[in-house]
Amino acid sequence: MDAQISFLDQLFSARVLHESGVDGIYGRSAEFEDVIARFETLALFYGKDEISEAMVFPPGMSMQDFETSGYMKSFPQLAGTVHAFCGNDHDHMGLLQCMAAGEDWSKDQKRTQVALTPAACYPLYPILAKRGALPADGAYVALQSYCFRHEPSRDPARMQMFRQREYVRVGSEDQTMAFRELWKERGQDMMKRLQLPHHVDVANDPFFGRAGKIMASGQREQELKFEMLVPITSEEKPTACMSFNYHMDNFGKAWDIRQADGSPAHTACVGFGLERLALALFRHHGLDTSRWPDGVRSALWG
Amino acid sequence: MDAQISFLDQLFSARVLHESGVDGIYGRSAEFEDVIARFETLALFYGKDEISEAMVFPPGMSMQDFETSGYMKSFPQLAGTVHAFCGNDHDHMGLLQCMAAGEDWSKDQKRTQVALTPAACYPLYPILAKRGALPADGAYVALQSYCFRHEPSRDPARMQMFRQREYVRVGSEDQTMAFRELWKERGQDMMKRLQLPHHVDVANDPFFGRAGKIMASGQREQELKFEMLVPITSEEKPTACMSFNYHMDNFGKAWDIRQADGSPAHTACVGFGLERLALALFRHHGLDTSRWPDGVRSALWG
Repeated sequence: MDAQISFLDQLFSARVLHESGVDGIYGRSAEFEDVIARFETLALFYGKDEISEAMVFPPGMSMQDFETSGYMKSFPQLAGTVHAFCGNDHDHMGLLQCMAAGEDWSKDQKRTQVALTPAACYPLYPILAKRGALPADGAYVALQSYCFRHEPSRDPARMQMFRQREYVRVGSEDQTMAFRELWKERGQDMMKRLQLPHHVDVANDPFFGRAGKIMASGQREQELKFEMLVPITSEEKPTACMSFNYHMDNFGKAWDIRQADGSPAHTACVGFGLERLALALFRHHGLDTSRWPDGVRSALWG
Repeated sequence: MDAQISFLDQLFSARVLHESGVDGIYGRSAEFEDVIARFETLALFYGKDEISEAMVFPPGMSMQDFETSGYMKSFPQLAGTVHAFCGNDHDHMGLLQCMAAGEDWSKDQKRTQVALTPAACYPLYPILAKRGALPADGAYVALQSYCFRHEPSRDPARMQMFRQREYVRVGSEDQTMAFRELWKERGQDMMKRLQLPHHVDVANDPFFGRAGKIMASGQREQELKFEMLVPITSEEKPTACMSFNYHMDNFGKAWDIRQADGSPAHTACVGFGLERLALALFRHHGLDTSRWPDGVRSALWG
């Protein structure tokens, strides 16, 4: 915990990140953003001959698709929904009086049709589903999105709002499994070039509650999720900077995405936690990017 | 209205934008994103010798700073607040039952400390305030943020989630007014290079309700806001693609930002509506960027 706070304070002092008053919500310096942009270029290079399409999503998605995703079943504690004022002049006066009295004015905010995106690939699936059955070689999409997770923390590597860059493979079981294995290798290659200490391990998502414990251990037993772990604020609890996920045909069934033969599509994704990767680089190579090792600089700045 | 829908449908068909099921929430193609990135590089070039700092903000800001901004007084209808599930296992079961029955499960979501950022410069002011009195030459910051405005529309130029790039000047009345006049000129120069039809006009923000009408006409009379108008989906009602704003010392007072002499700072900003500028380019030069006029291509791709 001390190491986390100390690194966060260093990042604030050096103006790499800017405090907002809310843990996990930070402004980013131009230099921090440049590291992220360069990492994205590196990551895009690895898949450039394979992708069928590239997309970028806004930080919110349709509430209906969010419900379809099943996220509220598994991770209700992390989700964010967007609410808005929908009243008239009279209601507005009430709201302002409530605010002036220091009371909770947000209780009259109404739900909108927007949920904050919890994982960058969720908005993709309904887009693919609407296009009809996949071609025989499936789909292979590069994408990026801001994501939200409600877990305020002083660990700079656990932000509430952060970006994921992903490759998503949609098709047969063989296609998606081969994709995931390939990217585990590529991920390790990238980490070597960036000269970051790392190892890949089986992992589980932070499923909610008592039932969640069973889901988590099932996920580990089936080896559905692997993570690229890098020490950032702790050696004992390294941070997941990439994840390599196989969803079986769960999303194919949820959104009705079909393979060429009509059967539910399998999906897999590799996710790069962009802020976490940038933080790992700043942590291991220093707060001044001009003094990073030559090999790291050439991997990023070419 | 028909022109709006027709352009939106063209953008969907050409896969420049991707439908989400919610008006104003769209996926972006790689080409659309490239146009935005190139425009940002162009915009950053104009101010490169003047800026004191550059920042990028996440799509949300601290609720406390959001309240300080006064946004709920002026534009309550446009704001978005982030709510989350804060219950236990038992509450979670209730939520899932509610969802399965097709009822409004969002009513038990609780407010978080995060509001969606309504204007890209809002998160900057508290950061400057915390640093103490400004130096004599003030501050001159380049920044970017996703913004949210709750106004679902089929006009592709009126998104609910979009990015603003801004320059913000903080200092004396003279510094901020000179800044705004300079950027009005620069904005017109940029539009000429991008070969877009345009004109600058005095404008007002969409203040809420009956009292808002008085505020809007006051804002116009004092010429606090100008917009760069470009026809996108309508000739009669062109779209504001840039805005040039002088806030007097309102934000200086609200957040206690002080000039070197201790008096409240004046602020001004120029905002570039990045999605709107990209849409204007696609509208006037076609959906295939490789066929845009040479002058436009060289302004963007160098």
